[in-house]
Formats: sequence, structure tokens, C-alpha cells
Amino acid sequence: LHHLLFWDKIKYMLEYTREQLWQQFLPLFYPKSIAIVGVSHNPLKIGTLWLKGIIDAGFPGRIFPVNPRGGEIFGLKILPSLRDIPEIVDYVIVTIPRENVSGLLDDCAAKNVKAVHFFTAGFGELNDVAGYRLESILLEKARHGGFRIIGPNCIGVYCPEARVPYGPAGKIGKSGSVGFISQSGGIGEKLVELGFARGIHYNKGISFGNGIDLDSADFLQYMGVDPAVSVIGMYIEGTRDGRRLLKAMTTVAPVKPIVALKAGRTETGAVAARSHTGSLTSAAAIWSAMFRQCGVIEVHNIDEMADSLLIFQFLREWDGRGIAIIGGLIDGGGGISVTAGDVCAEHGLDVMPLTLETQQELSQLLGRVGSILHNPVDVSQANGNPAIIKKALELVINDPNIDLTIIQEDIGILHKYLPEVIVSEINAMFIDLKAKYHKPMVMVLPPGLAEAERGQIEQEFNKASIPVFPSMERAAKAIANLKYYSSFKQGLRNYND
Amino acid sequence: LHHLLFWDKIKYMLEYTREQLWQQFLPLFYPKSIAIVGVSHNPLKIGTLWLKGIIDAGFPGRIFPVNPRGGEIFGLKILPSLRDIPEIVDYVIVTIPRENVSGLLDDCAAKNVKAVHFFTAGFGELNDVAGYRLESILLEKARHGGFRIIGPNCIGVYCPEARVPYGPAGKIGKSGSVGFISQSGGIGEKLVELGFARGIHYNKGISFGNGIDLDSADFLQYMGVDPAVSVIGMYIEGTRDGRRLLKAMTTVAPVKPIVALKAGRTETGAVAARSHTGSLTSAAAIWSAMFRQCGVIEVHNIDEMADSLLIFQFLREWDGRGIAIIGGLIDGGGGISVTAGDVCAEHGLDVMPLTLETQQELSQLLGRVGSILHNPVDVSQANGNPAIIKKALELVINDPNIDLTIIQEDIGILHKYLPEVIVSEINAMFIDLKAKYHKPMVMVLPPGLAEAERGQIEQEFNKASIPVFPSMERAAKAIANLKYYSSFKQGLRNYND
Repeated sequence: LHHLLFWDKIKYMLEYTREQLWQQFLPLFYPKSIAIVGVSHNPLKIGTLWLKGIIDAGFPGRIFPVNPRGGEIFGLKILPSLRDIPEIVDYVIVTIPRENVSGLLDDCAAKNVKAVHFFTAGFGELNDVAGYRLESILLEKARHGGFRIIGPNCIGVYCPEARVPYGPAGKIGKSGSVGFISQSGGIGEKLVELGFARGIHYNKGISFGNGIDLDSADFLQYMGVDPAVSVIGMYIEGTRDGRRLLKAMTTVAPVKPIVALKAGRTETGAVAARSHTGSLTSAAAIWSAMFRQCGVIEVHNIDEMADSLLIFQFLREWDGRGIAIIGGLIDGGGGISVTAGDVCAEHGLDVMPLTLETQQELSQLLGRVGSILHNPVDVSQANGNPAIIKKALELVINDPNIDLTIIQEDIGILHKYLPEVIVSEINAMFIDLKAKYHKPMVMVLPPGLAEAERGQIEQEFNKASIPVFPSMERAAKAIANLKYYSSFKQGLRNYND
Repeated sequence: LHHLLFWDKIKYMLEYTREQLWQQFLPLFYPKSIAIVGVSHNPLKIGTLWLKGIIDAGFPGRIFPVNPRGGEIFGLKILPSLRDIPEIVDYVIVTIPRENVSGLLDDCAAKNVKAVHFFTAGFGELNDVAGYRLESILLEKARHGGFRIIGPNCIGVYCPEARVPYGPAGKIGKSGSVGFISQSGGIGEKLVELGFARGIHYNKGISFGNGIDLDSADFLQYMGVDPAVSVIGMYIEGTRDGRRLLKAMTTVAPVKPIVALKAGRTETGAVAARSHTGSLTSAAAIWSAMFRQCGVIEVHNIDEMADSLLIFQFLREWDGRGIAIIGGLIDGGGGISVTAGDVCAEHGLDVMPLTLETQQELSQLLGRVGSILHNPVDVSQANGNPAIIKKALELVINDPNIDLTIIQEDIGILHKYLPEVIVSEINAMFIDLKAKYHKPMVMVLPPGLAEAERGQIEQEFNKASIPVFPSMERAAKAIANLKYYSSFKQGLRNYND
């Protein structure tokens, strides 16, 4: 019911109907054919790299390399012009210098293409008359030609489901449910890379650079109605129309979580943004207030963005409250308990006391000497015995005060004291408990002296839908963001009831 | 002159003369002989592990295993009692249960030992009458017996120079100039592990647990006058005598940087600290105010502690002001520039505009399209050419406005676009430039898709005295801490002049 309610709201508040959004964005994210303008015989040329990336990614549609000089590459005929393409072209990637771009757009209009993506830079971000004039020519030709522009000065579309890779390096990951909208191609690339490293699986992403036509508000509206996208990360330097973005955020945020990183918050950052995407930034406080008003989760750096996308990928909403912290799987649980307790409390999480019953049972299991048993729980007195750690964990997970369990595993210290089979047994046990009790579990695996093992275990937890963070601080912040969004939704429900 | 001035001040304000401090602490950090009480034939017993750790670390002094049952282990005769040891014993490690501890202390007095370290737990941290009574018996016997107590409930001494490893796992690293004083054995272990991983080289460390006799104030006084220690990290849950600690901090902070992590800042953390080391914590704001008053650098988690120790290890003081940020070694410099500019500015660093001359030369070198040249500097238009990156870097390093350069190297992206030899060439070039110009250089190497390569390059930078951080945020915070301490010292100089 609530879902339908919000759906009605979305229909009402978006500028376009769902059908219009599909019509505009499907050829862009799921193109039937792609033309790449600026391919040459030089394998290191950017257009050629782009072509190779799309072929290597296994893009199933037609691919048309374009260069006035013609020729052949990777077994494909290079066509002299877009007009020579014998079929319909959905998506055009432009890598030629800005001087040659204007004529190309007439070809796009003639070919009736749907979207033109300009990797080419050298427009408004140069802050000179020539750059702005070029942008207005582009925009005018797009309006008359009936196609949309992505960019200029960007990496464009990423859609693993459609086998469209991110950028000329041809990166493509497993398709998932996370979306990103990034004004910066480099930040998009970083998000894709962190996706591989952290197990964040994207459904689609976009880097739109100067955003002279399609802007963050457009992509946000589309991702808002795209059922394949469950959470949206946004990297914003500025926008040409704050009111549109506000409206889009207000409409989409109640339906799916939006995690936003506003860059150019400071004078230093703002000057850089001016040269980067030609963005005029405004006061950081205004943006923060707008995010709060819309229920958008604001983050302050790319790591926090990745952390939040990761947790929302697995735990889209969370109705709970009480958090348990487990540390000292083999040693060092005391300091971890104190510092983790501080960090979680400072981020506004409720580290709830365990019931007296649980505390008594833990005391019988672990003994009082050397143990910390109220929560945080130091299980080091189990001396690395997987059966005892398991019993302790089950007591905590099933405590009525506990809705989410954070486990800190110092993998370097574990490997120092325990044989590898025991470490594996302990990790398999966590995964079993997660599957058995269906209560949210979050792992903290700090970097240290067993990096290869840590990477492998992180992947195993990812497969089991257990998010992994490199520090208690970052886990706490991500859970706090999850809690923030859940409270926002709860508030909306109370309002609507 | 200033150095002498402070030295006089230290002599005046410390409770002990330098000679008294040497006398008390040398047998503890540089013992001529160690006795381990509680060694058995079981190789997994904690006393036996401890013995093995000390032997494996290559401790050059005499080692005496003690157990009433006698026997032999690792080629050493197990003596039935301390009194049976035919030589002088400096340092005793106690691993037997708390019930048997009292009689042992009479033996310590009889043998005239200098320091007794209780790994044994089960005292004041249990918050029961028996625990407190035991502690007061220990203390009384120590006073009468003329020896000092470390602990109970702790890991004790770490001194790589003397080949005394940290804890029963026998960890020992390269000797350096960093000291740590940790109430928690686990946090000490984490610091040692992070030292291995991050290239922080300790001179000595101490975990003192409940601190019933020697407390943080004692160790701080000693490390304050120990010329081998250049920076001191402290992990504090509470203290028995705040006034003594305040006095020690006030005296030592002007001479060498003290980085302090106060745990138990929140109710949750404080409850855990109560069970951990029996510490009664007081309001976090009081501690923070005390740190500020003394010129102590306060950090809020263990990663920030490691980051600060790392930067102070290489850059003890820094007289500069202007910071340059370099990003986009091959791609993605735009978003990095904007976000890095924000982060550094938000941490109070001065990201100074480059001189017009430098900007013009950079513009000639890199071109304007796709570049950001005022600072942060995006060098992606060098297309990974080491010679061009080098020229750009030299321009920035030698700009009169710049005193420190932060370089972000996204190693996963570099390896994606460039052959390995070129990546190596770029990294060797950074190290050369650091050596050539003697200006502080800080590297940011974010984790990602080339973890093995990243680890290797981090080690190379470490060897070249270039501190490496995993994110721009953490680099900025560490530099801000360095700046804070440098300003504090500058203020003292102005006051004394």
C-alpha cells in the first residue's frame, strides 16, 4: 500500500510520465547499437580504446566505428561518416576534438540518433567565450535534431546488464541493483573500482560532466522509476537548475535511498570544480539543508559514498534499533570494545545493554576474568574455539534488545594465533549464523598483516550479503546513514497514516 | 637554545631527575635478564608461548623459565622458584592465575627484582572486593620489596632495540623512534601490527593495563627524557591521578609530540572501560580541554593514531604553510581535485594558489583542455608520460607558495592504463624528487584493484621517508595534526622570546 502511495506521488511530481522516461532513457542505457566517432588504426588512440572496450565487454548490439579516413579495425569496417551507417543508431560516443564536433551533430540529426555522448572536453569548463559558444551550438542542434546530449567532458553510460562498459578501459562488473549519477568521470571510475573491490554491484551508472542537456535531475528521475535500481549514489559539483534537482530529490528519496556527495563545498574545492565541469557551486550549507529536507543521505567523501551504497545494497531499510558489538575473536577485545563503544555511540547508534539473562549465560560460557560482557562483548576468553564463539554469538544475536550485530575480526591477529582451518571455520560459522537467523550482520575487517586472506574473506562475506568495512568508524557511519534513512521513511509513514 | 630551555623545564617539572628515571626504567625496557613464571611443557600454554616468543625474537640476555614442577623446555632448565635463579633478575613476567600471585611477590622481593609484569588478569577490572584486595596486596608488597609493577592485566614491555618482543605472539619489528603507552594490550598489539603494515617503527612501547603502580604519567615522564623516542602515542582509558598526568603532559609536550587517544568518551565506551582495565573515566570534554591546554594532539580512533605517529616519525615539525595537491596521474584528476580541495580546506590546510608563473608554465606543459592548474593540480593531460609528470611536479614543488606536496596515486587505475615499467618509473621519480628537493611529500594511495602492487609501492615510499595514507581525508587529518603541533611550538617560542 505504501509502495503504491509513493508511486502515485512520483507520477504526480515528476516532469515526465514513466513511459516518457523509459522512451528517453532506454536507448541510452540499453542501446541496440553504438557508433564511436574518432576510431583510428592507432590502438592507443582513445576512440580505438573505447571500441575495444565495448567489444571486449561483450556488447551484444551492433557497433559502428567512424572515421572520415575509413579502413578496418578488429574485423569491423570503419565508416567515413555517421550517415553511412546502414542501420538505426541509438547511442553515439564522440571522441574527436571539439573543433570538429559541430558538423557531426548535423549527421546525428540526419541519422535520427537518440543520444550523443561527448567524451570530448574543452567547453564551458574552460570559462572562455569560445567554450560557452560551442556549448550553446551543441544544445541548439540537439533541440532541433531531436536527440539528447550526455556531457560534454564525461565518460557517459555504464550498464553491466546491457554489457556497456564504463569508459575506454572497458571496465564491466556483475550487474546488481546500485545506480550512480556522477558529474565527474574520475569519481565514477573510482566508484566502479571500489565496486569491484568491495562487492558493490551496479545496475547502471552515468558520468555526465558539464551536463549542458541531460543533468543530474534527469538521470535521477529516470533511476527513480527504474525498478532495477534500488539505491542511487550521486556525485554533484553544481547544477544548472537547483529547483529541478530539489523536486526530483523530493520525489525520489521517499521511494529509494539517495546518497549524495556534494563537492566544491569549500572555496578551494569550488575553484577546482569551476575548471573541472564548469560548475558554479553555491554555499555548502544550502546544499546540506536541501539534502536534509528531501531525506537525501549526505556523505563527505568517496569512501563514505561506497560504504553507504554497500550497506543499502544489502539492507535497504532497517526497522531495528539495538546494536551489538562483538570483538576480540582471539585477543585484543578489551581495547576494541571500549573504542568501538565510543565510536558507535558518537555516531548515534544504540549499543543496547544485553538482557541480564544473556549476560549470565555469557558469563557461564566465557567466565568473568578477562571478559567484557554487557555489550560491547569481548569474546577473547573463548580462546579462538569456534564452538564457544558460536554459542556466544547466538546468545547475542537472539537477545531481544539486539537488532543488528557488528563483528570486528582482526584477521592479522587471528592468523597469528590460530591455524588457518580454524580461521576458516570461524568465518564459515558467521556466514551460517547470518543465514540461520536472518538478522543483519556487519563485519569490520581492519587492514593489517594478512591482506591476501582479508581480501578473500571479504569476498566470501560479500557473497553471503554481509557488508564488510575496513574500520569500526566507517561501519558505524554507514549504519548511521541507514538509520537516518529508515527514520526518514518512518516519519513519512507516520505522516501518511 | 630552545632545546636547552625546554630541557631545564623538564628537569624542573618532572617528579624525578633524569638519572632516577633512567635507573627505574632501564631494567624494564632493557632488561639484562627475564624470568617467566608459569612456563610448562604444554607448548600452547601462555607462559610457554611467551618464552618461545622471547627466544625467537633473539633476546640477548639470560632467560629463566619458572614452574614449581621443574623440568626442561627449549633446552632451558625450568626452575622451581624465582629464588632458585642463580643470577640477578631484572624483569619478571607473571602468567600464573591470580590466586598464586601473592607468594610469588615475596620471592621477587627476596631476589631483588626491578620490575614485575602481570599478564595475569582478574583484579580491579572485575569490580569486586576480592579484585581490589588483591591489587592492594600487590601494591604493598611492591613498596616493601622495592620493585615496580606493570599491570596487572596487560602485555607489558615492547622494545625492539633490546629484542624484547610484544606479547606471547613474539612480535618484533625494526627499531625506530616512535613510542607508545597503551592502557590496552589489544590496542598496543594493533599499533604494533599497523606499524608493520604502515612502516611505523617503534623504539619502545608499553601496555600497562590496570596500572596500579606504574601509570601513564610514569611512562610518559620516562619517554619524555629518553632521547631515542621522538614521538609518543598514548591510549588512555582513565588514570588514578589526573593531576600527575596533566603535569607530565605539560612538561613533555613542548619537547616532543604526544598523540593521545582517550577511550571511554561515551557512556557505552566508559562502561566497557570499567570492565576492561577497571578505569573510571570522566567527561570527554574535560580530557579534550586538558589535551588542548598541554599541546597534546588528540585523535579519535586507532587509524588516526597510526596516521599521526607515521607523519610525526618523518616530519617531526613543519615550519611551512602552503599545501599543493596533485591528482590524476593518468585519469580521473578532476573529481579528485575537487574533492581533495574540499577535504584539505575543511581540515584547515592552506591549499595555496600557485604563482601565475607556475600556472603559465603548467599550462604550456599540459594544455588547458582537460586540465586543472591552479591547485589542486590535475596532471592527467600528461597521459602518464613520466617526463611530463616530473616537469609538472618540479614546477609545483618549487613554487614559492608551496611547502608540502600531497600526491594522490590511484594505483589500480594506473595499472589499468599503463605498463608496469612506466608505473615503476613514475614511482621512482617521486622518490627522486623527494630526495632532490628536500620538501615534504605525502602520498595518498587509496585501496582498490591492485592491492599487491599497492603494498609493495607503499613499502618503497616508506623506505624513502615518504608517509603513505589510504585516503585524502586521512592524509589531510594527519597533516592538520602536524600543523597543530607546529603552531603550538611556534606559540611557545614566541612566548619564550
